[in-house]
Amino acid sequence: MIVVMKPKASLEEINKIKAKIISLGCEIHESNGANYSLLGLVGDTSRIDAHLLQANDSVEKVIIVQEPYKKANRLFHPENSEIIVGDRSIGGKKLSIMAGPCSVETEEQIMTIAKDVQASGATFLRGGAFKPRTSPYSFQGLEKHGLELLKMAKKETGLPIVTEIMSTSHIDDFVEDVDVIQVGARNMQNFDLLKALGKTNKPILLKRGLSSTIEELLMSAEYIMAGGNENVILCERGIRTFEKYTRNTLDLSAIPAIKKLSHLPVIVDPSHAAGLWWMVEPLAKAAVAVGADGLIVEVHNDPANAWCDGNQSITPERFNNLMKKLSVIAEVEDREI
Amino acid sequence: MIVVMKPKASLEEINKIKAKIISLGCEIHESNGANYSLLGLVGDTSRIDAHLLQANDSVEKVIIVQEPYKKANRLFHPENSEIIVGDRSIGGKKLSIMAGPCSVETEEQIMTIAKDVQASGATFLRGGAFKPRTSPYSFQGLEKHGLELLKMAKKETGLPIVTEIMSTSHIDDFVEDVDVIQVGARNMQNFDLLKALGKTNKPILLKRGLSSTIEELLMSAEYIMAGGNENVILCERGIRTFEKYTRNTLDLSAIPAIKKLSHLPVIVDPSHAAGLWWMVEPLAKAAVAVGADGLIVEVHNDPANAWCDGNQSITPERFNNLMKKLSVIAEVEDREI
Amino acid sequence: MIVVMKPKASLEEINKIKAKIISLGCEIHESNGANYSLLGLVGDTSRIDAHLLQANDSVEKVIIVQEPYKKANRLFHPENSEIIVGDRSIGGKKLSIMAGPCSVETEEQIMTIAKDVQASGATFLRGGAFKPRTSPYSFQGLEKHGLELLKMAKKETGLPIVTEIMSTSHIDDFVEDVDVIQVGARNMQNFDLLKALGKTNKPILLKRGLSSTIEELLMSAEYIMAGGNENVILCERGIRTFEKYTRNTLDLSAIPAIKKLSHLPVIVDPSHAAGLWWMVEPLAKAAVAVGADGLIVEVHNDPANAWCDGNQSITPERFNNLMKKLSVIAEVEDREI
Amino acid sequence: MIVVMKPKASLEEINKIKAKIISLGCEIHESNGANYSLLGLVGDTSRIDAHLLQANDSVEKVIIVQEPYKKANRLFHPENSEIIVGDRSIGGKKLSIMAGPCSVETEEQIMTIAKDVQASGATFLRGGAFKPRTSPYSFQGLEKHGLELLKMAKKETGLPIVTEIMSTSHIDDFVEDVDVIQVGARNMQNFDLLKALGKTNKPILLKRGLSSTIEELLMSAEYIMAGGNENVILCERGIRTFEKYTRNTLDLSAIPAIKKLSHLPVIVDPSHAAGLWWMVEPLAKAAVAVGADGLIVEVHNDPANAWCDGNQSITPERFNNLMKKLSVIAEVEDREI
Repeated sequence: MIVVMKPKASLEEINKIKAKIISLGCEIHESNGANYSLLGLVGDTSRIDAHLLQANDSVEKVIIVQEPYKKANRLFHPENSEIIVGDRSIGGKKLSIMAGPCSVETEEQIMTIAKDVQASGATFLRGGAFKPRTSPYSFQGLEKHGLELLKMAKKETGLPIVTEIMSTSHIDDFVEDVDVIQVGARNMQNFDLLKALGKTNKPILLKRGLSSTIEELLMSAEYIMAGGNENVILCERGIRTFEKYTRNTLDLSAIPAIKKLSHLPVIVDPSHAAGLWWMVEPLAKAAVAVGADGLIVEVHNDPANAWCDGNQSITPERFNNLMKKLSVIAEVEDREI
Repeated sequence: MIVVMKPKASLEEINKIKAKIISLGCEIHESNGANYSLLGLVGDTSRIDAHLLQANDSVEKVIIVQEPYKKANRLFHPENSEIIVGDRSIGGKKLSIMAGPCSVETEEQIMTIAKDVQASGATFLRGGAFKPRTSPYSFQGLEKHGLELLKMAKKETGLPIVTEIMSTSHIDDFVEDVDVIQVGARNMQNFDLLKALGKTNKPILLKRGLSSTIEELLMSAEYIMAGGNENVILCERGIRTFEKYTRNTLDLSAIPAIKKLSHLPVIVDPSHAAGLWWMVEPLAKAAVAVGADGLIVEVHNDPANAWCDGNQSITPERFNNLMKKLSVIAEVEDREI
Repeated sequence: MIVVMKPKASLEEINKIKAKIISLGCEIHESNGANYSLLGLVGDTSRIDAHLLQANDSVEKVIIVQEPYKKANRLFHPENSEIIVGDRSIGGKKLSIMAGPCSVETEEQIMTIAKDVQASGATFLRGGAFKPRTSPYSFQGLEKHGLELLKMAKKETGLPIVTEIMSTSHIDDFVEDVDVIQVGARNMQNFDLLKALGKTNKPILLKRGLSSTIEELLMSAEYIMAGGNENVILCERGIRTFEKYTRNTLDLSAIPAIKKLSHLPVIVDPSHAAGLWWMVEPLAKAAVAVGADGLIVEVHNDPANAWCDGNQSITPERFNNLMKKLSVIAEVEDREI
Repeated sequence: MIVVMKPKASLEEINKIKAKIISLGCEIHESNGANYSLLGLVGDTSRIDAHLLQANDSVEKVIIVQEPYKKANRLFHPENSEIIVGDRSIGGKKLSIMAGPCSVETEEQIMTIAKDVQASGATFLRGGAFKPRTSPYSFQGLEKHGLELLKMAKKETGLPIVTEIMSTSHIDDFVEDVDVIQVGARNMQNFDLLKALGKTNKPILLKRGLSSTIEELLMSAEYIMAGGNENVILCERGIRTFEKYTRNTLDLSAIPAIKKLSHLPVIVDPSHAAGLWWMVEPLAKAAVAVGADGLIVEVHNDPANAWCDGNQSITPERFNNLMKKLSVIAEVEDREI
């Protein structure tokens, strides 16, 4: 951390800031330029709140040099992490492909789709039981009954279940029934939920918020990890920009960025990113080419009659075709489907 | 709602979509242009999910004409709403000025500040007890003890309390202790929390999410109102943009926009918008000039030693001076401080 | 400028970077933290390209401490600048109000509007002769004939003319006919145009680009000033964000920010910001309250039949009414209309 | 185009708008819902300015159904366009790979790089002679001498030249010396430049502006095409968002979007998008996987000493390695390198 003093800061003011830095347990390296004095903090700055220093009148700005996350930081954990889910691993050579409907609707629906995606090579079954919807008048999910149907599909196919949690009050059910607990984009900074999940030992799929920076995503992972649960998988699903042709703008640069900054695995959700089924295939291919550890894709056997988000779901036939193409691209990356 | 069929949609496909529209309880007005056929839906479209129609291959796009919110919509409620809090009203001629520290720290701190802001004309006391922080290593608030200190300050000054809730598990405490329950920007789409608050009868201060559109803010208000609680106050607090000189970009255009679209009162938070104490004064004046129903402002007696966000807090002296200027601007708007 | 070396940079690599810094004419202050080595550059860094250093494998990142603009920087020019235009001044106690139609259409139109806005207290006449339009099929302006009509209106009313230049090929005409030459948002980084205008001595009204940071706006001012023309007036006119209710999002925080960073005057364009005539009044009031040095407002005698942008123009009656309100707010700021 | 009348619009007001629509040469399809009356315009609406109608008090909003571009529109030109450059074609089965330095620096530099990229399979040589730089104090390019050096490199290698034009005053030189004239992101809406290029018959590489929508990019292509020059190649190079880890956010969704909306070829610039050399490889692979018609990549033999943008340039060795991987991915798309 570097404190840039105002050009007109007096020696007295500079000494006041220096005393504060020392009281925070850091040493100081001072450097005086033509217009600015710089005070460099040497020591463990990860728990120091930059605002504490910035709130002084004599301080021009505070520059943060080291990333504010530790457990998620590749600097302190150079090897890639693999997250183990039963007999599968997320973040290893084999890509993790999570596929299934936006919402669980009926036993027949989820069974059909689960078998179809498994046959095409999916390694996890996704499906929403509790649904975050912009409108209170939209279908809100089958809730607990949805979890039951997912468990039936898992029993039939062996596919581990990925599904979204919306509230701390459901944690016990999720820990019992679900293999990977998803935190949706809108809850990425629901810190009470993150803290509660940090106390479980379940793999957590943490989706990037619509307007969250990569650093904020890693700070939310840090919340879970600081609680004791290091089984975090990150997910890029599009960010909000001025461009409205697609629902969100898929930020594929985030994949190599996260790979550089963190050791955690990261997957891509091409369905929510674009919100357009005909874009899922090209974006999925691009995600594998850019180095993602997997995908989460919406697949529905009858998109035109889906209870939600039919417009971004692909059919099992298209999914099957897509998987074949992905396996060629995966090889270029020395990965496999 | 208008369905635009693809240029090459066949008569059979058009008839299929027409049948679907009729099954949803709407009449159809058809209009054929040079390149596109349009199907207009006439009837109550507020509960129809546009994606249901869009997921058909023959549909080019679906255009929504009417706003998807009803209870928050000025169209069905032309008069301004006033929210009553004890002997005060939010949304009436007198502006609501909520002032106080970012976090409640000590009894002495909250008492001092409460008396100071009251003396300057503040009408509500703000102060955080449960704090949403980006880093798990930052101060997380005094929690329940913070609520106790706020109640002491209320007892002393008579100022009603505004403070933020972060989880459904605290609702009982908040209903008992707090006068206005704040939902923070990061929880604007925490739908479980919104639903739970909809079942109380407490005034809710709903802050706009960092990347939420005005329409989404009104849809979140609709969640609370649909549950039965129509006491919603909206708050603009800056949105996330590419400009990084300020923490967020205060969107003051949102005030006249919300006034046009909705009957609910709307206030402005200049402290979180800029994240810079020296911008609070100009932005507060602009907020009153643009027609806001009030302000929520961070005031701290010792910003350089505040436990959080000192950099965006103004001193009681500056607050006092600001209030005098605001009262002149309020008059131009036929309002009063 | 501070160079942050990679955690694993070898002594040899660090020495290589040090040698490069010295070759650029700077001294080095070195500081070694737990994980990073920092090399601080002391000396004139304004002409050093940070990328030159960043392109080295051993460099983690380069942090810029001092603003890259000099002539526009308040640090080296603490007093506010006033730009003199004939007998008027922009940036002084009296606010500059530039009003008139989007496009010059006919002699009668421009004469009528010019007289109306003058009667209400406008101090400059704005009007487009060369029009940047998104579509090649839209009205492109009266061009040279438009300049002639503006001159007639100036002769009649005495109002100096503000109008937009789109190409270096028109500079001679503009220098002769126009009092303040406007550079539109889309040309803010048309560097050839900026350089050419730097060689004139005309006041330049430089509008912020739709996606330009405050720093980039000041760098574009620097282009003009570096050429020898220090008569630059800045203009905030809305930036592009995810919110689509308004055409752009007016960034009023930019006004106090620019006032802090630079000595140049800055005005606000509420018409282009919102793109909605009924928002012009509240945004204009907010702009004066936030501390702008003036406004540029579209006024049309018959908005519903305007040849362009009628939707964002207010009538002379509304403008007259607005001016009265602005004068009260200006007083709060110790300014006058 | 659909005009939505205000809920309280009177019959007289509705009739006034109808008369206006008829005067614009369109027929009307009227549709009355519970709250809104809709007037659909049938006929050629591409030259009608929506603002003309929107500026009426009785109009709630105007919804545009058909895209405002014609010549660039796939609707009227269903087949992909190929742009012929000598013996090469852009937009055909073989991908177009444009490679070379950010700036032309010396004869030796450009010769070395040109031979290297040709040997690796590049099909065009890129290199800047006129450079748009944010700072007036940065290197501005070798200008005309740069064009001479590019011609020498072309003579030696046979690679056609792609380079950026910044001003209408250089058009004659560019038409004579250059094979593909590039319009940079900052000039995408420099309409005078677009009009002038529309009168040449040279292939134009049009880069998307930092904050331009896909529709605006196509409208700028329309400017060139409306002038008579239909040889336009589009380029996605990253848009400006809140995420600052990368210089811009590469919007790869734009590729399938443009392919759907337009028949023009579209390539990707991974170098300017990220601004980080180590991201060029993954983003280039993703661009080919998503369906781009080619790439424009910065390659420099000594990035650490490049005169500009060294931080985003890859070495010839890395480029060579990248080309091999791209050829496998291209095959999945039924394309070739």
